[in-house]
Order: sequence, then structure tokens, then C-alpha cells
Amino acid sequence: MTDRAAAGNRPRWAIALHGGAGALPGDLPLAELQRIRDALQEALRAGSAVLQAGGASLDAVQGAVRAMESSGVLNAGRGAVLSHEGLAELDAALMDGRGRRAGAVGAVRHVASPIDLARAVMDHGTHVMLVGLGAEQFARERGFDLEPDSYFITERRRRELERVQRACGTEHGAPQGTVGAVALDMHGDLAAATSTGGMSNKHCGRIGDSPIIGAGTLAENEVCAVSATGNGEWFLRFSAASDVWARVKYLGTGIERAAREVIGELEAAGGQGGLIAIDRSGTIAMAYSSPTMLRGLASSERAPEVIVEVTGASAGHGPAHV
Amino acid sequence: MTDRAAAGNRPRWAIALHGGAGALPGDLPLAELQRIRDALQEALRAGSAVLQAGGASLDAVQGAVRAMESSGVLNAGRGAVLSHEGLAELDAALMDGRGRRAGAVGAVRHVASPIDLARAVMDHGTHVMLVGLGAEQFARERGFDLEPDSYFITERRRRELERVQRACGTEHGAPQGTVGAVALDMHGDLAAATSTGGMSNKHCGRIGDSPIIGAGTLAENEVCAVSATGNGEWFLRFSAASDVWARVKYLGTGIERAAREVIGELEAAGGQGGLIAIDRSGTIAMAYSSPTMLRGLASSERAPEVIVEVTGASAGHGPAHV
Repeated sequence: MTDRAAAGNRPRWAIALHGGAGALPGDLPLAELQRIRDALQEALRAGSAVLQAGGASLDAVQGAVRAMESSGVLNAGRGAVLSHEGLAELDAALMDGRGRRAGAVGAVRHVASPIDLARAVMDHGTHVMLVGLGAEQFARERGFDLEPDSYFITERRRRELERVQRACGTEHGAPQGTVGAVALDMHGDLAAATSTGGMSNKHCGRIGDSPIIGAGTLAENEVCAVSATGNGEWFLRFSAASDVWARVKYLGTGIERAAREVIGELEAAGGQGGLIAIDRSGTIAMAYSSPTMLRGLASSERAPEVIVEVTGASAGHGPAHV
Repeated sequence: MTDRAAAGNRPRWAIALHGGAGALPGDLPLAELQRIRDALQEALRAGSAVLQAGGASLDAVQGAVRAMESSGVLNAGRGAVLSHEGLAELDAALMDGRGRRAGAVGAVRHVASPIDLARAVMDHGTHVMLVGLGAEQFARERGFDLEPDSYFITERRRRELERVQRACGTEHGAPQGTVGAVALDMHGDLAAATSTGGMSNKHCGRIGDSPIIGAGTLAENEVCAVSATGNGEWFLRFSAASDVWARVKYLGTGIERAAREVIGELEAAGGQGGLIAIDRSGTIAMAYSSPTMLRGLASSERAPEVIVEVTGASAGHGPAHV
């Protein structure tokens, strides 16, 4: 792989995605595991199709994330984890590496695809971030169909919330399942997108790192694109995505090492999770300190691959190069 | 004495604050200008008193910002600019340089001191950021008194909103008046705090850079503390505070130059505003690309000074050293 990079066999396009860091519950039925794998494969297919046709990385990451949001088996959109009140409150952001345009929504209910709403915020151009009822009002203004709360709630998440609340009424579920994607397109543009329901049993109105530009989501053509997953409070306090960006931009650190270093320092400080990143040459980094991170990648130079480990065989970091 | 001289007369404590970047309206009555000056002086006095008594920088910046929030003449707390619906929706964040602990609230109504609420979020320790109705619910849980909408609305802001809406129903007021503070205490700890009503005529639910850790607010003992003001969407997209932090940390750039460079690059990209920053040696930077930035500073080595220029005599950057 290094040889190929040295030979200048730079991919014309590349995409990576994650379905969240954490550990899959031991009692997860095999059929559910297969549905998770299918969801990641479908998301990878959706994103790759855009890139292969010469489309924009922004559309590719949005499409990949939208597919994961609608899967019903990942922690985003339908199937997201539930708040203390038993409701899905959703966060999402996406960023265009061209000129660092961005859109984000937080603590929004009733919107099936929060990543599409974040895109609408970005395209509207007035604001970067809308939250809560204001974000929902914007969705109505832009013609989004609103779904009832029940649309988002799955039996698995309801049981999960009950379990967490039985254990301790004020405890929160382990971070898991945030989804995200990063991509490089044929035009050399980078993009990143992230979407999540946050953590089980969270306080209403809680926002983690996912919709925060510079924490969970970041893209700049000349540097890199990043999407994070894990213990959102830590990634937010340490501006994780910005730190990867800064190491690449100011220190000239390679994307793989930058990703590993940031995840390592977060772990040393007490925060577990992972991130995916891509640089302008199409090199992909996938680093995580959690037992595993659901992930996938594809490029013009390699067949799509989805990695769903029940326990992490290689925790620390996944494949580094496309 | 010799040691201190060799160390550049490093102050035992130092604090800087801003009352926002922008331009004061030409029709502002002189009496109102005096009230703004009084508010900044009172905030500087409140913060300095904490530091002089050996208190924590975190308490100092919180106290300074709380004083500005209650002044009624700055864009934070009472007297904040109004949303499209004519309501005050408030954002605030603060960060403790020790271990990068942080608390933030966004799009919150009815809370007289959003910075106190951000502090409560941080001290509670479960989450870093709460927004909208969830943040208000948390305020009730923590025993905050809630104020009616009318508490926040001043005649000046009501006229300002009418003017902006007459000019164009979908236009937004120029950014102005966000308040913030950064400080170094006798124990060597840095802290930053920022509070704002955002921009006049904003969409409900809009969040700017102020409450975003890494964009409008950041503090890390070993590096620097930053509080920004200006066109929030730009500061958010460019993770302005993180960029200052990264230049100091990874390039070894001095705080004054780092602040100037980031404000310069933001201006070149199209975003106007300013920021205040302080490093571990107590050196203060105040950079802005707007016509002026209301500001003040004080330290163990110098008398308090508040600078309220009607038009910027020295736009670009203010005094660099305490």
C-alpha cells in the first residue's frame, strides 16, 4: 500500500464511514448484526455511487449518512438512542471542504434525516447552526415532512433505555453508534458528515460533539476531513477534529498518525471513542480506543469493505490506507 | 525584582474583557455610551477583585461576564439583541484551563445569567452543552429563577429589530456586542467565558460561535484562553479559538501574533470580528478587524483600563501586553 502511494497511485475518489465506536452488546441477535452490516454496506454503496459518477464528496457523505439514518439499526435518525424522556433528539452536521461551508442541527425531533436538515441550513446560507424547536421550525419552512416521535423509537432502544434507567436513574448509556462519513471526490474536494442520537438517557437538550464544527465534524480541502464518534463530551471539550486538522496543517503530521495521536491523548485524558479522517491524497485513517468501531471504506482503487467486529481484534487503529 | 524583570515583569494575575466587536451606532446617545463604559468598568472591577483576592480565573471570568449580562446595555443577558420573533435567545460558554472542563448553553430563554447556567452545566459534570427548552428545564432543576421574556427586552433593542426588519425582513443585524473575558490567576490557571444574544433578527434556534468550545470560547492552562466576538457564523466555520490555540501550541507563535493572524485570515475569507486571548505568561492579545471592539484589561502590574472608541482609532489590534 505504501508502495502504491509512493508510485503516485492516488485514488481518484475515496470514502470512509463509521457506524459508531463502542462495543456491540453481547446479547445482540445475529440477525440484528447482519442488519447492521447491511446498513453499512448500503451506506457505502450510496456514497461510492455518487463519487464513481463524478459527483461531489459533499453529496456522497450526505447520502451515506442518510442511508444510515434510515436503517433503523444505528444510533442516528430512526433507531437512535432515546433521551431520559424516551424521545429521539437528534444532532447532525456536515461540512464542505471548499471554503469551509457548514451546516448543523442539534436536539431536533421529528426530522427523519437530520443530515438533510443540516444540508438545508448550509445551503440556505444565513446561519450555520440551528437547534431545538427553532431547527424544527426551519424544517417546516423548508418543506420537510415531520414524523411523529414514534417513527424514531425502536423496541431495541426502548429496552436499552429501560436497562440504563433501571441501573441508575441518572446514569447514561455508553456512547455508541454515532454514524459519519468522510470523502474525497474526483474534483479534489473533501467533505465530512456526522449524525447521532447521542447517548441513551441523556438530558433533554444535550448536544455532544457530532454537530459541533471542529469537535465531531470538520473538512477543509487543503488539510483533511474528519468525522468522530465516542464519548461526545470529551471530544467536544478537546475539539478533537480541530486537533487532527491542526496537526496535519501546522506540524505536517500524516493523517493516520494525527488521528492516532488525538485518539490516544483523548484516551489518556479519560475519553473513549474513534474517528475517521481523509486527507487530500485520499489516504484514510480510522483510529479508535473503544473495543471496536463499525466501519467501511471504498475507493477508485479498492473494492468496498465493511468491518463489523463483535470484539475488536485490532483496537487502536484500523486500516490506514485505501 | 531581577527575576521578574528577566521574565518580562510577568503579572501575578491578569484579566481582559470585551463588550463586542462592531461599530457603535452613530445615533447612540452620549448617556448610553457612558452606561456602556460604566458596565465594562464594573465588569473589570468584578473580575479583578476575584483575582486580586487570590481567587480562581474561572470565577473571575464568570463574574465579569455576569456583570455585563446584567448591565442592560450590552448584547448579553438583559439588553441582548432580539430574534426575528422579538425574543432574547441567549448563548454562553465558559471553560476552565485546568483539564479543559467546559459548560455551554445555547438558544436559552428566561435565564438572566446564561453564564451562570453554563457554569452549572459544567459543575454538574454530566454533559458539556445543553440547548433550548432542555437547557431551560435544567435551569429549573438547578433552582435558577426564570424571568419573563419582558425582563430581557430593552427599548433600544426593540427599535433596532424594527429597523433591521424594515430594511429587509430576512436581513440580520450586524454582529455586535457579544461579551467575554479571559484571565490568568495567581495559581497559574487560565479561563475563558463568553455570552451573547447573537445577531438581531436571527432565526429562532440559531447558535453562533460564542457557546461553541473551540470556536468562540477555549481555555487550556498550558496554551492559552480565548473569547471571540463578531460574525459568529464565520468564527464557527473556521473554529477561530482552536486555530489561535493550535498556532500557539504547535507553531510556538506568540499569542499576540496568533490572534492577529487568525483575525486577519478570517477577514480575508469574509468574516469580521475580534477576539481577546491570554497566555500562561499573562500576555494579553486583543485583535479585531471590525471598526472597533469595546474592551478592557487589568493586571497585578497595571491599573484597570477600559477602551470605548466610537470609531476605531487603531483598528487591526489593540494593546498587546498587560
